[in-house]
Amino acid sequence: MAESPLDGVAELDLGRGARRGYPEAVYCEGKTPEQVRAIAHRLAEAYASGETSGTALFTRASEEHAAAVLGELPGALHDETARLVIWPAEPPSPTGGLVVVLCAGTSDLPVAQEAALTARHLGRPVELVVDVGVAGIHRVLARRELIDRAGALVVVAGMDGALASVVAGLARSPVVAVPTSVGYGAAFGGIAPLLTMLNACAPGVGVVNIDNGYGGGHLAAQIAAR
Amino acid sequence: MAESPLDGVAELDLGRGARRGYPEAVYCEGKTPEQVRAIAHRLAEAYASGETSGTALFTRASEEHAAAVLGELPGALHDETARLVIWPAEPPSPTGGLVVVLCAGTSDLPVAQEAALTARHLGRPVELVVDVGVAGIHRVLARRELIDRAGALVVVAGMDGALASVVAGLARSPVVAVPTSVGYGAAFGGIAPLLTMLNACAPGVGVVNIDNGYGGGHLAAQIAAR
Amino acid sequence: MAESPLDGVAELDLGRGARRGYPEAVYCEGKTPEQVRAIAHRLAEAYASGETSGTALFTRASEEHAAAVLGELPGALHDETARLVIWPAEPPSPTGGLVVVLCAGTSDLPVAQEAALTARHLGRPVELVVDVGVAGIHRVLARRELIDRAGALVVVAGMDGALASVVAGLARSPVVAVPTSVGYGAAFGGIAPLLTMLNACAPGVGVVNIDNGYGGGHLAAQIAAR
Amino acid sequence: MAESPLDGVAELDLGRGARRGYPEAVYCEGKTPEQVRAIAHRLAEAYASGETSGTALFTRASEEHAAAVLGELPGALHDETARLVIWPAEPPSPTGGLVVVLCAGTSDLPVAQEAALTARHLGRPVELVVDVGVAGIHRVLARRELIDRAGALVVVAGMDGALASVVAGLARSPVVAVPTSVGYGAAFGGIAPLLTMLNACAPGVGVVNIDNGYGGGHLAAQIAAR
Amino acid sequence: MAESPLDGVAELDLGRGARRGYPEAVYCEGKTPEQVRAIAHRLAEAYASGETSGTALFTRASEEHAAAVLGELPGALHDETARLVIWPAEPPSPTGGLVVVLCAGTSDLPVAQEAALTARHLGRPVELVVDVGVAGIHRVLARRELIDRAGALVVVAGMDGALASVVAGLARSPVVAVPTSVGYGAAFGGIAPLLTMLNACAPGVGVVNIDNGYGGGHLAAQIAAR
Amino acid sequence: MAESPLDGVAELDLGRGARRGYPEAVYCEGKTPEQVRAIAHRLAEAYASGETSGTALFTRASEEHAAAVLGELPGALHDETARLVIWPAEPPSPTGGLVVVLCAGTSDLPVAQEAALTARHLGRPVELVVDVGVAGIHRVLARRELIDRAGALVVVAGMDGALASVVAGLARSPVVAVPTSVGYGAAFGGIAPLLTMLNACAPGVGVVNIDNGYGGGHLAAQIAAR
Amino acid sequence: MAESPLDGVAELDLGRGARRGYPEAVYCEGKTPEQVRAIAHRLAEAYASGETSGTALFTRASEEHAAAVLGELPGALHDETARLVIWPAEPPSPTGGLVVVLCAGTSDLPVAQEAALTARHLGRPVELVVDVGVAGIHRVLARRELIDRAGALVVVAGMDGALASVVAGLARSPVVAVPTSVGYGAAFGGIAPLLTMLNACAPGVGVVNIDNGYGGGHLAAQIAAR
Amino acid sequence: MAESPLDGVAELDLGRGARRGYPEAVYCEGKTPEQVRAIAHRLAEAYASGETSGTALFTRASEEHAAAVLGELPGALHDETARLVIWPAEPPSPTGGLVVVLCAGTSDLPVAQEAALTARHLGRPVELVVDVGVAGIHRVLARRELIDRAGALVVVAGMDGALASVVAGLARSPVVAVPTSVGYGAAFGGIAPLLTMLNACAPGVGVVNIDNGYGGGHLAAQIAAR
Repeated sequence: MAESPLDGVAELDLGRGARRGYPEAVYCEGKTPEQVRAIAHRLAEAYASGETSGTALFTRASEEHAAAVLGELPGALHDETARLVIWPAEPPSPTGGLVVVLCAGTSDLPVAQEAALTARHLGRPVELVVDVGVAGIHRVLARRELIDRAGALVVVAGMDGALASVVAGLARSPVVAVPTSVGYGAAFGGIAPLLTMLNACAPGVGVVNIDNGYGGGHLAAQIAAR
Repeated sequence: MAESPLDGVAELDLGRGARRGYPEAVYCEGKTPEQVRAIAHRLAEAYASGETSGTALFTRASEEHAAAVLGELPGALHDETARLVIWPAEPPSPTGGLVVVLCAGTSDLPVAQEAALTARHLGRPVELVVDVGVAGIHRVLARRELIDRAGALVVVAGMDGALASVVAGLARSPVVAVPTSVGYGAAFGGIAPLLTMLNACAPGVGVVNIDNGYGGGHLAAQIAAR
Repeated sequence: MAESPLDGVAELDLGRGARRGYPEAVYCEGKTPEQVRAIAHRLAEAYASGETSGTALFTRASEEHAAAVLGELPGALHDETARLVIWPAEPPSPTGGLVVVLCAGTSDLPVAQEAALTARHLGRPVELVVDVGVAGIHRVLARRELIDRAGALVVVAGMDGALASVVAGLARSPVVAVPTSVGYGAAFGGIAPLLTMLNACAPGVGVVNIDNGYGGGHLAAQIAAR
Repeated sequence: MAESPLDGVAELDLGRGARRGYPEAVYCEGKTPEQVRAIAHRLAEAYASGETSGTALFTRASEEHAAAVLGELPGALHDETARLVIWPAEPPSPTGGLVVVLCAGTSDLPVAQEAALTARHLGRPVELVVDVGVAGIHRVLARRELIDRAGALVVVAGMDGALASVVAGLARSPVVAVPTSVGYGAAFGGIAPLLTMLNACAPGVGVVNIDNGYGGGHLAAQIAAR
Repeated sequence: MAESPLDGVAELDLGRGARRGYPEAVYCEGKTPEQVRAIAHRLAEAYASGETSGTALFTRASEEHAAAVLGELPGALHDETARLVIWPAEPPSPTGGLVVVLCAGTSDLPVAQEAALTARHLGRPVELVVDVGVAGIHRVLARRELIDRAGALVVVAGMDGALASVVAGLARSPVVAVPTSVGYGAAFGGIAPLLTMLNACAPGVGVVNIDNGYGGGHLAAQIAAR
Repeated sequence: MAESPLDGVAELDLGRGARRGYPEAVYCEGKTPEQVRAIAHRLAEAYASGETSGTALFTRASEEHAAAVLGELPGALHDETARLVIWPAEPPSPTGGLVVVLCAGTSDLPVAQEAALTARHLGRPVELVVDVGVAGIHRVLARRELIDRAGALVVVAGMDGALASVVAGLARSPVVAVPTSVGYGAAFGGIAPLLTMLNACAPGVGVVNIDNGYGGGHLAAQIAAR
Repeated sequence: MAESPLDGVAELDLGRGARRGYPEAVYCEGKTPEQVRAIAHRLAEAYASGETSGTALFTRASEEHAAAVLGELPGALHDETARLVIWPAEPPSPTGGLVVVLCAGTSDLPVAQEAALTARHLGRPVELVVDVGVAGIHRVLARRELIDRAGALVVVAGMDGALASVVAGLARSPVVAVPTSVGYGAAFGGIAPLLTMLNACAPGVGVVNIDNGYGGGHLAAQIAAR
Repeated sequence: MAESPLDGVAELDLGRGARRGYPEAVYCEGKTPEQVRAIAHRLAEAYASGETSGTALFTRASEEHAAAVLGELPGALHDETARLVIWPAEPPSPTGGLVVVLCAGTSDLPVAQEAALTARHLGRPVELVVDVGVAGIHRVLARRELIDRAGALVVVAGMDGALASVVAGLARSPVVAVPTSVGYGAAFGGIAPLLTMLNACAPGVGVVNIDNGYGGGHLAAQIAAR
């Protein structure tokens, strides 16, 4: 669990993979591209020396952040919609239960994609279903078989966030609810769906932060692990 | 449109029935039983003299308020669940479209009852359906024929408030959404379902104040009037 | 009620017109122009094949969104003030009751226009009155005859949002209240008029989301339908 | 400007009358009856010795607080509705402009009474008008002559708080707006009318704290002083 | 999946056990003891007839609610601390992974007990650890072996809610975070720990509503099921 | 009191000067420059025809708004700091009591200047004092003589907003408190000083909206009018 | 640093005195008297055995809590105003700098007393000054010599909370600011003074939770320790 | 304590150093570069004439602000990360206790740097430790010896803000907690860590405003002064 000070910039928790089973992700927002590059450089060294292993995830990466990472970890996957940079680009062979990501509207897609990619690269099989909001309830009811097969579900929704309650009322497996900032006015940047999900009238719903697709995918991957 | 000062206590808007088609209701909360009694006395006079006509509604009435009204308007209907006192006790013959009141949970019943009684005594035919929350979505889907027949719908729900979106996605007629203070913690006294309903992903939803069964029933009665 | 997957982008609810009497609108915010173009393309196909019919509305459309729609649905109406794209450009012959849209201030005009265009293209006769805020109460009192003729009213107001209460105290028909984000400081992006409208001391007011002119116009069109 | 420590309980600002023209009031809430009694005792001494003069006001006084004051300042006026104890019981001869207190609903009366009594005992002529909310706009319009005569107006309203904007749009003199906690749900204990009044679309409105009838009456008395 | 209308009071979702694997719980708050008794009566019938099976949970039960249930389902377990009534009193033989409930302070115990009893009666082995808040970090570090053995963890904390982040940084298994209303002032009835948990700097945390021990225990039971 | 429809853009309240003694101001934010130009054009006509008279104020005017006004009302005063355009450029001869504007910090100067110019052009003598925040309490104490001379005071402050309480504790005349959005973090765009001012421990404070220098100056001008 | 499990109720952090220099306090709110008694019993044992030493503080203690403690630790000091139980009753000989507690109003006295007693029993000399709010600024200015002598200051204030800024602008030593829930309406249970203090325009202010007199006194005792 | 009016722009509190021991800092946000330049010019004069002495700090300085200061006080230190300009560039010889600044994540570095530089230039020895958030608790535990040596600690953290509680549970010396706006969604611009820190379950934590590195460093410098 050796650590490097990175010149007063960061102290990587390289032992996290060994300790928790999942490696530390790098949150790029609020870091300069230079800081991100230094972190990627240190990770590249650690992978090369065998000091650490597994997948490296850079979340909420701007174009500049992504370029900095790709300079140090060539061949990494950069998904612009999800604002993710992932190394290595190829996900591991899927193991564990199926993670089903259900997305209420097209505008929620970036967050849903972030969740799906995260779960996939942490080792789970994943299916992503888009635009099945409750205004047309037949759309989610048509996925009941898929819902039954899931080992964990991720529901991504903004505005009224009502999809989480409906899905949890149908599913055997836990639902990870990810509110999004999609909407306007009294959606209050995601507060509306956040509260909806925290108050879901069906049990079996665990909520993560607004727009936190990474957290949703990570938690679902843990739940479906075995 | 004569008015009486009621000794510096209230100034009844006896012309409201003629002006708006629906009489003024008396909001009891924050008034003393003596003040409510004085208002009921003045209304009894006005009915007797033909100065006004139609239904008198006393909302959010405590036991003491109700006793005060019944002393002045004997034979009035007192519904303790809905905290309503209504005079006369008999509703008018129903006219206009059907008002369907859908209530998500048993704990929402007092507000739903207030809405149903209000709409009924303002002249509409009313049906009340209890405990059809979205955690068991088959319950509301089993009412699709009733929903299709409605001229106006009132959806009463606390906690996640998700029922309004689902119903509005199914209904041709407008949905009046009444959030309730049922719930705890992050329900924040009804803020959670209020925001859900304001952000309903289906259009055709008009929201009234938290726990405002009277307002919900009144608005539905107006919508279904013809 | 056939549906197209749109390549994992959206799942149009083409049956909504048959189910609810009003077609699904496309909310453009948060979608890329490419996604909106793909949706418009699918709608054009569905109109051509007779799979669906009626009016197509694209709400909160930027210049880029509008260009994408116009490329697929040539001849559509683009109203920049209301940020609406509507196809076909010609509204249907008006039926049902009159929808009166009352706008408190000039700065509320974009939202009021969105409401008026929506109601008009969903089939109602519409009149729009601008700048009748309660600071000069004679302005709204001068419209009492128009208010009496309305089958439904839409009140659009920011800042204190007081116009909704005054109008509802005068009108026989239901009032749809649309708070706007016009104002600053303690207007809190529309929270002030939203709360005013939810607490209107006159009954008969249904509130929609802040700046939701589309929702206000849609609900009024439903109310005034017959 | 001599001061007494009151045994570590309070340090009366007996010079305030000389400094500001209006004496310090004693806010009773959160004080024990014993503490209030000690303060009243000290004031009685100061009046007797000529150390101070003018009116003594005890605000938000419970029955116990009032009894404590009356024990020390016999003959004081105790108004239970307004929760005020005032000494001496007789107000001074009125001077300055007329203070008009307008109260939207009967439930707002305690706060309006607190304002009216305060202004009256600080020396102004006062008129109190009850139950002129905007749901029946003719009621306030019928008071235009009174409004024109006022040197200062106090508007007391809960729920939508819309009366302040309407009155300020009619009045030459400044309007002191007092939001009340009357209402429920999204009135949020007075936040709704507070925001309405802060965002009044007519200028000339100064807002005081929720339920602060004392503050409203004091400010109006100052404004109308000459 | 037959259902009984319960005289317009409730519509039990007796099929939920078959559909989701876990039966519906009865939320007592806001229901009268009579309504709860009617529901318990219907459940007793359904158990007797074989219409449903499994554990019946009555949450947030007052003394009166509990008496009503015990009259219909004699021998049920009533835990006053957790405000739970459970039938049958004996939990099933534990299967699946271990659920570890960690409680930050003694004042959080009622919620932690609710979580532990729920998970136990839904079939999991459970261990409860009390008073391991981060102000004495050695207390939680001393439980690392237990944390490693868990199939799911429930962290119950009020005030700063910081325990969830620390535990998630140590654990392989998912953490269900339950904020409590323990605290005062800027704890805002549980908002403070709720926000802390939603913003946990370690991934793998799913949050449920404030004081929702039932929901936390249910979700953990699902996660640790296999 | 003739009015012009301004082509569906605005309905000027030209009678406001006669009715209230102060003319309507034009709030530019949210209006296009073209709309503002049309309003200025109509005002120019009304001044020319004698239909109205007095000062015209355009508030929160951008450079584009100002250019539009100056094209129609040449010679108007444009103060960029205060974002005001005023016609005519010369204020009337001062009458009434002195308005003293006290500004807590240099960053509050734009709002203070807006207040001072408004009061000056509505006819009062005005003095502006800058940077007398309570962190150096000697600065405001050094202005006691000026405070004593004032007929009305305007206190403009962001951050802690504490200056209003201190000044009201010293002054005989009413204090108009204008909170500003100066500050960051927990200043919450002006909520912090707004609440401070609403809770001022000294009476005699009337609060206007955050950053509402115009409203503060207008109210002070009314108070000091005679 | 031995610890006792206290039968699943609490896990005392007896090593805290050795680790931090100040012993753990027992927060009574939310604990049953029986739980508090068990904790007091364990502490009595630990003092008797020499396992721990120093002062024991029980905060926010009701009458029942106090009785439970006094049964186990006879002779302890019970201050009802401050809701504190302290053992031993005699404070240690004072060392370190002077802690000055300044209290804005009489209603803030319980919190100020809690701060003063805490600092005194943690070993500092303490002076308490009551009722020096900024509405009469001469009261605090008259204490400048005392302020200069302080090694740490505690400012306790509700409502506008302005006293903290004024004192910090005068003092060399750090100011610990304790907002209280004294006030009503827009004081929002202490949010108003909390925000004022967080935004103090003078530096050198550290804020603790609303009504947290214990925390304020503890922090001041640490600051003034040497 | 002579003061200069600075042409109606600012009134420097040049006596603050003598009065409080620490000079006034200049808050640049909301000031124009010209205003900042005028202030710097006045300070340069005052330093030259001996009217004042000590360190000059310009906080939250943009590039333009910094250029303006450097033009008047050549050789000043400009730290772009911390947005500070400090004159003279060399800090004084360190005296007093050690200030340890602990920073939870790399994104919090700008605020931590502002705190460290402020404490250093106000005369304390300072050590800065970066990226020791509680998700890897071993990182902060590895600094226990440093924590023990500190005379004051500054904890800078966004998101869950949990580091402050953990450190206060370990430290003898006071902890100054600085919440940051790092995070997204339910971090609400720093509200989440602010509430966490105000509710820290360990005593000895004083909180300053969100992102207020200057205030945190200043308070720590005062605490560690002797």
